[in-house]
Formats: sequence, C-alpha cells, structure tokens
Amino acid sequence: MTKVNRKMRMGMIGGGKGAFIGGVHRLAANLDGEITLVCGAFSRDPQKSKESGEEMYLSPERVYGTYQEMIDSEKEISEGERMDFVSIVTPNHMHFAPAKYALENGFPVVIDKPLTFSYEESKELLKLVKETGLLFGLTHTYTGYPMIKEAKELIKSGKLGKIRRVVAEYQQGWLSTKLEDGDQKQADWRTDPTRSGKAGCMGDIGTHAENLAEYVTGLKVKELCADLTAFVEGRRLDDDGNVLLRFNNGAKGVLFASQVAAGVENAIRLRVYGELGGLEWSHEDLNTLIVRWLDKPAEILRTGVNYTNLSDRSLINTRVPAGHPEGYLEAFANIYRNFAKTLKARMNGESIDNEAYDFPTVEEGVRGMAFIDAVVESNEKGSVWVKINE
Amino acid sequence: MTKVNRKMRMGMIGGGKGAFIGGVHRLAANLDGEITLVCGAFSRDPQKSKESGEEMYLSPERVYGTYQEMIDSEKEISEGERMDFVSIVTPNHMHFAPAKYALENGFPVVIDKPLTFSYEESKELLKLVKETGLLFGLTHTYTGYPMIKEAKELIKSGKLGKIRRVVAEYQQGWLSTKLEDGDQKQADWRTDPTRSGKAGCMGDIGTHAENLAEYVTGLKVKELCADLTAFVEGRRLDDDGNVLLRFNNGAKGVLFASQVAAGVENAIRLRVYGELGGLEWSHEDLNTLIVRWLDKPAEILRTGVNYTNLSDRSLINTRVPAGHPEGYLEAFANIYRNFAKTLKARMNGESIDNEAYDFPTVEEGVRGMAFIDAVVESNEKGSVWVKINE
Amino acid sequence: MTKVNRKMRMGMIGGGKGAFIGGVHRLAANLDGEITLVCGAFSRDPQKSKESGEEMYLSPERVYGTYQEMIDSEKEISEGERMDFVSIVTPNHMHFAPAKYALENGFPVVIDKPLTFSYEESKELLKLVKETGLLFGLTHTYTGYPMIKEAKELIKSGKLGKIRRVVAEYQQGWLSTKLEDGDQKQADWRTDPTRSGKAGCMGDIGTHAENLAEYVTGLKVKELCADLTAFVEGRRLDDDGNVLLRFNNGAKGVLFASQVAAGVENAIRLRVYGELGGLEWSHEDLNTLIVRWLDKPAEILRTGVNYTNLSDRSLINTRVPAGHPEGYLEAFANIYRNFAKTLKARMNGESIDNEAYDFPTVEEGVRGMAFIDAVVESNEKGSVWVKINE
Amino acid sequence: MTKVNRKMRMGMIGGGKGAFIGGVHRLAANLDGEITLVCGAFSRDPQKSKESGEEMYLSPERVYGTYQEMIDSEKEISEGERMDFVSIVTPNHMHFAPAKYALENGFPVVIDKPLTFSYEESKELLKLVKETGLLFGLTHTYTGYPMIKEAKELIKSGKLGKIRRVVAEYQQGWLSTKLEDGDQKQADWRTDPTRSGKAGCMGDIGTHAENLAEYVTGLKVKELCADLTAFVEGRRLDDDGNVLLRFNNGAKGVLFASQVAAGVENAIRLRVYGELGGLEWSHEDLNTLIVRWLDKPAEILRTGVNYTNLSDRSLINTRVPAGHPEGYLEAFANIYRNFAKTLKARMNGESIDNEAYDFPTVEEGVRGMAFIDAVVESNEKGSVWVKINE
Repeated sequence: MTKVNRKMRMGMIGGGKGAFIGGVHRLAANLDGEITLVCGAFSRDPQKSKESGEEMYLSPERVYGTYQEMIDSEKEISEGERMDFVSIVTPNHMHFAPAKYALENGFPVVIDKPLTFSYEESKELLKLVKETGLLFGLTHTYTGYPMIKEAKELIKSGKLGKIRRVVAEYQQGWLSTKLEDGDQKQADWRTDPTRSGKAGCMGDIGTHAENLAEYVTGLKVKELCADLTAFVEGRRLDDDGNVLLRFNNGAKGVLFASQVAAGVENAIRLRVYGELGGLEWSHEDLNTLIVRWLDKPAEILRTGVNYTNLSDRSLINTRVPAGHPEGYLEAFANIYRNFAKTLKARMNGESIDNEAYDFPTVEEGVRGMAFIDAVVESNEKGSVWVKINE
Repeated sequence: MTKVNRKMRMGMIGGGKGAFIGGVHRLAANLDGEITLVCGAFSRDPQKSKESGEEMYLSPERVYGTYQEMIDSEKEISEGERMDFVSIVTPNHMHFAPAKYALENGFPVVIDKPLTFSYEESKELLKLVKETGLLFGLTHTYTGYPMIKEAKELIKSGKLGKIRRVVAEYQQGWLSTKLEDGDQKQADWRTDPTRSGKAGCMGDIGTHAENLAEYVTGLKVKELCADLTAFVEGRRLDDDGNVLLRFNNGAKGVLFASQVAAGVENAIRLRVYGELGGLEWSHEDLNTLIVRWLDKPAEILRTGVNYTNLSDRSLINTRVPAGHPEGYLEAFANIYRNFAKTLKARMNGESIDNEAYDFPTVEEGVRGMAFIDAVVESNEKGSVWVKINE
Repeated sequence: MTKVNRKMRMGMIGGGKGAFIGGVHRLAANLDGEITLVCGAFSRDPQKSKESGEEMYLSPERVYGTYQEMIDSEKEISEGERMDFVSIVTPNHMHFAPAKYALENGFPVVIDKPLTFSYEESKELLKLVKETGLLFGLTHTYTGYPMIKEAKELIKSGKLGKIRRVVAEYQQGWLSTKLEDGDQKQADWRTDPTRSGKAGCMGDIGTHAENLAEYVTGLKVKELCADLTAFVEGRRLDDDGNVLLRFNNGAKGVLFASQVAAGVENAIRLRVYGELGGLEWSHEDLNTLIVRWLDKPAEILRTGVNYTNLSDRSLINTRVPAGHPEGYLEAFANIYRNFAKTLKARMNGESIDNEAYDFPTVEEGVRGMAFIDAVVESNEKGSVWVKINE
Repeated sequence: MTKVNRKMRMGMIGGGKGAFIGGVHRLAANLDGEITLVCGAFSRDPQKSKESGEEMYLSPERVYGTYQEMIDSEKEISEGERMDFVSIVTPNHMHFAPAKYALENGFPVVIDKPLTFSYEESKELLKLVKETGLLFGLTHTYTGYPMIKEAKELIKSGKLGKIRRVVAEYQQGWLSTKLEDGDQKQADWRTDPTRSGKAGCMGDIGTHAENLAEYVTGLKVKELCADLTAFVEGRRLDDDGNVLLRFNNGAKGVLFASQVAAGVENAIRLRVYGELGGLEWSHEDLNTLIVRWLDKPAEILRTGVNYTNLSDRSLINTRVPAGHPEGYLEAFANIYRNFAKTLKARMNGESIDNEAYDFPTVEEGVRGMAFIDAVVESNEKGSVWVKINE
C-alpha cells in the first residue's frame, strides 16, 4: 500500500461571506498546511455561496447549492481528489442533519459546538459515530490551548492532590443591549430558540466553561443548581446564568456565564484547587498557567518553555518558541491539525499518540447537551438541584 | 464651651501578645495621630495582659484584668483622661458581652467583625445602639479602600446604569490542612463552633464579600441558595462555600468563599455589571478600579489620581499622592480615623461629612449575621433558596 | 484582461527541517489562504531539502538543490504555475545573494531580518529594488500587531502631542550560557560573526526594537551612544547592549536589548510619551495598548474592540472578534497577507490602501543595518556618540 | 540602670501645613506606636508653625519658631521628656544646616533625601556623623519594602549567580507641564536650582533608582554616561534623563528617570539579571517579586508568605499576614521603626540585628550626592563617561 502523503481535503457546510465562525474554521484549518479546502456549500443563497467560493479560490464546480448535493457529488469523485472530511459551521439547528448525512455517506466530520440543537439529536449522533466508526471532531476551542493541556496533565499527575474546588467562568458583554433587533446576524440566531436551542448564553458559552472544567479536571459534573436570567427586555433566551456544581468525586464548584457583563470582551477563566495546590488560567493571558502550592512559591508556567518539563500534550500543541504568544486561532488550529493528523494516520493504518494529539469529539458534545438540559430544567423548576444526564 | 482638641483615647479589650487582629487594630488606630491607646484588658491571663501593656508603653495601673474592671474603673476617671471609646478585638463569642457593657456604661465602641456570635445578639446590640445613641464602628476593612469608595460613588451616580450582575468572591488557602490540630491559635477558634458561631468560612470571610457587594452596589441580597462544605476531614465548620444571590432590584449574582483554595493568599474581589458599564476590583491590586463601558475603552481609575475627578469619598480616604500605594492598614485606619473624627465632631457639636467619613456600623453587622443565618439555613435544608432576614 | 484570482505562489529559500524561522514563515504564509507554497530550495543538503519538500507535500520536481536552480527553473514555468515570489529565510550572511538573484530575475521577495549581512549590501539591495520596481517585504514581525498599528495611528493623529521620550526594550535569556558550544543550531550561527554580521544581540533583536520605535513614532534615531557586552565568556559577538537615543525631533530615549536576561522569554516592549499623553505596549500582553493622559484616566485599548474607534490600520490587521487573542503568528501572517494582497493588486492593476495593508520593506531593512553599524561603531570607539547613517 | 521603655520622642523641622513629605513622615513615624511627636519647628512663618502644632495636638510651648530655638530649648529639657531625635523634612537646600546643628548638639537625625544640597555638604555631614557617633537615618523609602529586602537577600545568597545586568527606572508624569508657574509648591522648589540643587529629576527621583539598584545588588556604580533634558520650555532643571551604567563587578545597566512621562504616576522599577537567574520588581505591584530561573519556572515571591522561606530581613519588615497588601507608608514606617528600635537599643546598651532592622544612613546619602554630581558632569561635558566619586 502506498502511504497517503498529502493534505487532507476539506469540504465546508455553512460559513459563507459575513459569517463569523466559518471564517475562523478556515483560518484554523489553513494554518498548519495539513488541510486544504476543496469544496463547500456555504449558503442556502446560491449566489452568496458562489461568491464565497470565488473568494476562497475554489473551482466553481465544487461550490454546491446544498450540503446534500455536496455530499452526493463528492462521493462520486475519486479518493485523493474528493473531500476527505466535512466541516459543519452552520447555526445549531442545522448541525444534526448535515452531520448525519455526512456520516451515513462515509465522511468524517468536524463540527462547531454545541453539538446539536437538542440532547436527543446528540445521542443519535453519538450512536451513528459509534456505528460508522468514523472520525468526529468538535471545536471546543478552549481545550486547544497548550496551557490548558498542561493543566490537565498537572491534575492527572496527582501533584495537586484530590480536587476540591472548581471555579469556571465565561463572561462577555456584547449582548448587553438588544442587538438582535438590529442587523447583527450573530445576535439574531443565537437569541432565537428555534435556531439556537433551549438555552442562549448557557448553550453558547456556558458549555465552553463546562467542557473546560471537565477536560482539565477529568471529573464529571454530577448535579447542579442553576439560576438563569434574560436581562435584556424581550430577549427570548437566557443571557446570563449562575450555576452551583457538584462533581462526581465530591468536589464543589461554581460556573457562571454572562453575555451582559457590560464591557467584558470574552473572558473565559478556570480555577481549580486540590488538596496540595491549585491552578489558575485566564483567556486574557492564555499562555500563562499559575500554579499555587501549599508550601512553596507559586510558579508561572508558560507556553513552550520547554526546560520546565512541560508535558508532551502541551509541547506538541505549541508551534513557536517560548515568548512568542500563541493565540485563539492556534488553539482552534490544534483541533483541526490533530484531527487531520489522526485522519491521515488512520488512512495509513498508523498509530498516533491519542493524548498528545487529542481533540474534542462526540462524547464531549453529548456532555454539553446534557449540561444544557440540566441547567434549563433546574431553572424552570425554580433553580433546584438536578442530576445531569450521563 | 472649649473645643476638644486632642487625640481620642482608646481602651482595648482583647488583642494581647500573639493575637493577630488586635495588633492590626492598634497599627490602624495609630496611623493618623488621631487616636492614642490609654488602657486595655488584653487577656484573661493577668500576666499576659500586663506584659502586653508594657510592650505598648502603657501605665501599669491602666492595664486591667477584665473588661468589666476596665469599664468600671475608666468611668471613674475624669473626661479627657479616661478612655473615650472601647475597641473590642476578642473572638466572636466574646463580642456581645463587652460591647453591651461598654454601651450601657456610655462608651462608644469599635468592634471587629462579624458583629456577634449569633443573629439574636446582633439585634440586641442594634437596639442598644439606637437607645444609647452612642457611636458604633465595625471593622469591615475592605470597604475602607479608596477605590471601593469610588466604586460605590460610580454606581450611585447611575453611570453604570441599573445593576444586573454581581460576582463577589473571597478565596484563601491557609486552612487547606487541619491547622487547628496544631498550635495555630487563629485556626483553632475560627473552626470552633462554640467560639466562631454557626459558620466557619462564611462567617469569617463570606461576610466580608457580602458586605463589600452590598456597600458598593447599594443593593440588598434578598434571597440566596448556598452549598457549604467542610473539605478538611474532621473540621467542625464549613471551610468552603458557593452561593447564588438574588438582589432586591432584580440583579443576580454569585458569592463564593473558600479557605481551602490551596495556595491562594487573601483574594477578595468584586465585579459588578450594569446596563451601561461594569467595574472590577481585586484586593491584589487594590489601588486600581477597572471601569468598563459599552461604547468606549475601559478606564483605569487609580487611588489618588485627583485630576480624574475622583469623588470626595475616595479622595478624603487617601493619604498619599497618586502612585504611592495604599495598603491594608490604610484601609483599616480609615475606619478608625473616620470614627475618631466623627467622635470628636460630636463632642464639639460639629457636623462632619458622613458620607466621605463613613465607616461600617451596627446595621452592617446585623446584615452580616443575617447573611450567616441564611447561608447556614439554606445549606442545612439541602441548598435550597431562603430569604435573608431584613 | 482577466483578473488574477488565485492564491499567490511562493517559493522558499532555506527553512529546511529543524530550522526555526522557516517553519514560522510557512505557518504565517498559510494562515489566510492567500498564499500557497509551490517550490523550495530548503537546504544545501539535497537529501534534507528533498525530505523537507515531502513533509510539505510538494511535488518532488519542484524541490530544488540551490536557489539559483530554483529561480532559473521557475522562470521557465508559465505564469500562474510558477512561483509568484520568493521567501528567503536563510541565516543573515545568505540573504543578499539570493535576494539579488531573485530581483534580477524578476521575482518579488519576502526576506527575514536583518536585511543583509552588512550595511553596504543593504544599500545595494535598496538600489536594486528601486531599479526593478519589484515588491519587497521584510519580516519585522512586531510591527504586524494590531495594537502596534493602533499606536502608530494614535501618535500620527497628534493626540499625544509632540513626542519627548521613548523606551524601547527587548530582553531574552536564552543565551545566558554558552549554548553555541552544543548542538543548538540557532545559537551557533547567531553568535558567529561570519554568518550573523558584526553584531549579535543588537542585530538579532536590537534591530526589532529600533524598527518598532521608529515605526510607531514616525521618528528617526539621529544619533546614539551604545555600550555593548559579550557577557558569556568566549562568545564572539555582543549578547547584551544598552543604548542612549536622540531622535530627529529632539525626543530622547533608551533602547536596550539582551540575550542574557536570565529567565526572560522574549520581552519586547515599547513606551512612548508625548506632551499630552503616553502609550505602553508589551509583547507579553500584545492585544492591549495602555494609553495614558495628562487629564483623564488611562485607557485600555484592545485588539478588535471596534466600538472604540480603532483605526482601519488596526482593524484590517485583526482577524477575530475582540477578546479572541491574536498571537505572534497572526502578526507574522499580516506581513505575508498584506504582501500577497498588494502583489495581487499590482498584478491586476488595482490600488490598495497602502497604509492599512502596510508591511516593512527594504527601507526599514537599510535603517536596521545603519543602526547595527552605528551601535558597533559607538561601542568600538569607547561608547561615544555617533550619528546614524541616513 | 533602668531600661528605657517608652516611645522615642521626635522633634520635627519643616513639614508645616500644606507640605507633602512632612505629613508622610509623621504618618510613618506614628504607625508602629514606637515614636511620638513632641515638638516641632514647622515653618519659618510663626503663625503657620503654631497652627500646624495645634493640628498635631502639640503643647504650644513646644512649637518653635526656628530649628535653632527648638534644638537649644529641647536640650534644656530633661531626658525622657525632651525630644530623643530630630526629623528634618525641609527642602534640599535647608537640610545641611539643621542636620549639622542637631548633630553638634547631640541629637540623632532622620532626614529626607537627597541628603544635602551639594556633594560637599554631604561629605561634611558624613564626617560629623562619624565624629559624633550619633544615629543617622535617611528616608530612601523604596528600600523599606519587604520584597526589596528579599531581593537583596536573594542576590546576597548567590542563587542568581554573578550579576550581569541591571535596569533601574523611575518614571513620573506630573511635571509634564510647567506646573512651577502656578501655585504648586512642590513643583516650585523642586525645579529651582537654588533650592533643589544642581539636578532636578535626577536628584529628586534618579537618586531613588540609584539607591535601589545599589542596595539590592550590593554593587556600586563605577562610571556612567548621562543624557539629561529639560523638556518643558523654560524649566531650569532637568526633568528627564537616561543613563548608561557600569558597575564595579563588570555588570552593565541602564537607569532612566523622567518627570514628563505623561500620565505615569510614580513608577519605580528594578530588574536585575545574573548568570543563573533574574528578579523583577515594580512599585505598582510592590508585594510581588518575580524570580526567574534558567532551568525551572519563574516563581512569584510575595510579602509575608512565610512558608516560602523568606528571609528575616523581609519578614521582620512585614506587619500583616500574606495577602494583606503593604503599602508606601509601611515601607516608610519601616525606616522610622528600625531607626527608633535601634535608638532604644543603643540607649539600653542592647544589640539589635542590624541587617534585619537596617535603614539607609549618611553613606547612602553621600552616594546619592556623588551620583547627582556625576550625571550632571557627564551631561555638561556632552554626555560622556565619567567616574562616580567614591
């Protein structure tokens, strides 16, 4: 067998001109030279889809009108020419159908979060992924940061002792006014229950905080008590929420997320404390991990400072030497690169270090949907304690 | 009438050698040259009390064996020589009796927080303060910081709009191990329900966070849901707690406090967001107040930078020019200085700007005790929502 | 004429496996999907060059043994297939010859800094660029940051008043020991006067600080006084230097650079103060620009916070929304993207906003070489004042 | 012999109503309850002196018209009642005469910096201090900070290796405009060569940076090259200066100070790098000392975190537990407290740990005056290298 030695070929669903996250996915996929965009169904508006394809220098014949058309057509193209996987960057309510169709037709999938519109859909996708055995990636970007990976390894090593306390937060201020009444496309669908799902802020960013907390600690939230609010008058979904957490090992925590924290940009932060030490990470200073100890000075771990015995999981997801700041796109690109490298390894029947090259997948997606269900249920019942679905 | 023009004379109850907070009170009282320590009943151990008095250069005859003896004796001394007020720095369970006795005998009181051992005691003190009309100060230190006073004024001005969201936190790590089993006197009484009261961490530091949030916002917590934990095995009181808050104006919030956040020193922080802007303050950078806006760059307010239109409340509580960092003792001293200046003004029948020279008093103390009752009740009932006593 | 609508095709000289900066150039060129690598002469070792090409998924026939061979061969390929420009990422002493050859054969050039081995070479290149009229880019990365561009615009606007004072610094610690005695390839050539040029630290990173200062202020250093040191015994070039600066408008400043600031990663920083205000930027917090004023609070400008009236120059060089941190690779990519967009515009006879899409070019390179000459001359004469060449 | 057990009695020269630094001295002297103000000659204006004394609750008979009168009169009062030492807080040109007179009459002295108006005066005082054997303190405040003391100990321990590189800076912005033309008393005398001495900014704050660098490193500046400027038109003394430094062990450095760094408050900072590690301290975050290492993560040392093996020199100069921020007044108070404790120990013939209870004295004052002479000489000769007087 000849080894496959080429860039992985990506087809994109959604993400036409003017979309936010589609462009981010493309930048992230470009970065490492491991992926090339070969086709797309960028918009339900054929003209817009065409123009988007032109801007991306695609052959016009591989810019499709619908995702079905794309999947059907690409399937007919010979391997090595056709797309190797699909990237889905549509709003939440249009995640499930194309993902299902791609999997059913043999295409691996990368998809934006939250995984689906509903918990039920997410369970169905999980089943399908298991059945097909196809590779599946979910872009929970924040776990792509090297220092987050280092934090995970640090806790796994036991150096911080048994974990007792977690503070996960994600505050933004951009929805402080009723932006959805204007022409802000992002605000529009994210506050619309028919497109976003049953949660607003909690689905959009609360799930990131939940994912970050569970990824880093290796623990699961067992039950929670949530108080959600739509502060902006007339808003149809929560734009703010505070949640008490209890973890499966007995640890306690708080998770809070807001899109009306006026003036705040995009502040996702995590603090975890164990019996022997603690760690603190903030998106505003993403290349730094503060590690605190009971009996010695706090330490400043930094992305790529390799003489400090950083883990492989962290170093492999770092591109440039210490002191050359990595950013959001690099974290995003880690997911794409790790997905592409794993895909190529599979094609070649090779193994790959699954921990160092890890990326979020359908299981994390199901967790996120269960989290959304739980916070909404808790809130609707008067902010009582509810168990989170396994 | 001749105006009183002298330092206010202080008698101290508790705070003998080896105590932590007693020494802090004395430093704070010294700073501005407005107060002089003239007598004390520093310890139940007469030898220790005597030695403490010597270290403080007091006349031996004014170092007393008990607070009753001190109050009874000082009462007999002529005005201008006798103590003008009492400072009480004993553990919580020994707050009420000396405070009551002092008030009943006509002495104004400064007292450490929390106000009393129980909510009931606090209500009785409130009644007594009202009846006697005597001046009463409570050392909730953190509201003594100039930037906290500026934050209060900023919200009061309406510039941030209606308040929606509050995050009040206070994390420490010093009780991560069972320190109370050793000879750490502070850890000993603070974790002992017969001396500390019904709450541990929540009484000791949670009340500071509650006081800070209510002082700055001018709002009241209406109801809350608390999840308290004693993480250290065998500990008799909570060492960690997470609380959901609902305020009287509809604002929501979280308050969390921990003494097992391993490696954290003393991190009290406050974030408040309104419809038009937000503010962020952290004890680690106490001379800075970050103010965020919906439509212009975030601003850095700094202690004493007078050309930026800081309020009187802030400037009057600042001693040195901008860029000369104020610290914890200065905040503490603001309470003592404002108390002493108010006391002298009263003696002279003069008025004083009560807002600029403000200090916490018995009402704030009652609030703190009601908060403790509420979090404990919520927790005992399974972390349900409970209303906080008026 | 049909408009060119395709990615710009890049050929690379140097940057084979194991090189640091070559890989960075490729990541930066990849990011925006505006450039595709089509050929390369990666190493003088043919086997290594071949393997490098394979890793980059290049056709073997377009992996060349020498830069001459590459340029000669590519010239014969039809436009649209052949490379559109050359990227030169070899050590300093191998900059001039390939750059000259590329220009003489009609290929635009992107080249790493410092521009050349000597000032004389740089002047010759300048002449050649002017004669050929070809596009020429120089990767002084740090001026690619959005907040640096904002800083430039702020000063240009006059809001800070006449500039009085500049502090430009660049400290690293990686050469604190004699790394060049081991197998550290980077340390080896950078400390070798036959490959690096007449300056070590000052050429490698001092020029970055000089470029940053001149770019942001729009001023020129007129004369300087430099004290250079090789602290590590046996090192052949300076690893540390402190320089007094006088600018052409009367402003004064200091520039210091060190590669023996033990434990420091890569700390380039700039502070500029004018009659009315000042600005402060640090690579460690690259998405923040602190702006200070004489009569109002300091402001925090942040990458991409578009409601704060950021300039086009800044916003056009920002890819993701506010709060999604940009990093080093994005700044680097701005140079490549702006170069590629300008190149395509030229091909199509279109105009482009030269300020918003700016990138450093041969003039900045000549300035850097003149700076190196001046600091070395000053130091050799006993750290006296010398004028810098125009 | 009966041991002296009382507060040390202080007389003050200068520092009447409206003065800045006099008030600071009094607050600092008050803090620890080791010193009591008993008399003063606060102003040449008798009425103002009288009013100042009243505000400080002094007996009218001990408020004097001139320093001579004060010293002459106090000398006649019995020991234990009369002042024990003199604090001199007048402008620079009025330092020498009262200091001399005090010493000649047997009174120990605390004095503000710079020591005197001229280098010659400082040498004369040095001689007098040696001859009389009297205690002499100089308020170079910044060396009073616990983390600065820790930095000194760290370097002394050899853990950072031989020192190579020093960056000492002190920037302010308050003199950005011609403040001395208005009624700003501070600006007035500080920019007047007949009262301030031959240097402006360099004398006022440059000497602090010099003192800080020499104290922490234990090194001496051997020679320097200075470029001084008066940026504000018509100003009579320098308001800005940049200086290259060479130390007696071969280390190099830069020192810069400015009072026209628009918008900067009071930013004194120190960075020192040795063969094995480095340290960084900033006045804005005074309770933190960052320590960098060649081969392990950077560490965050913090005031009072005693489990991290802080030195006695640091812990003894810390009043409150870790996490309770010390400020400027506490650093200032350390000088007064250590002076008073040393004075009392002397009176009692007791020994005291001179390192832990250290304070700057006349030798540091002479160094500062030599530094001023050297920077001015260098600048006047065209910014050439000059040796600094021993």
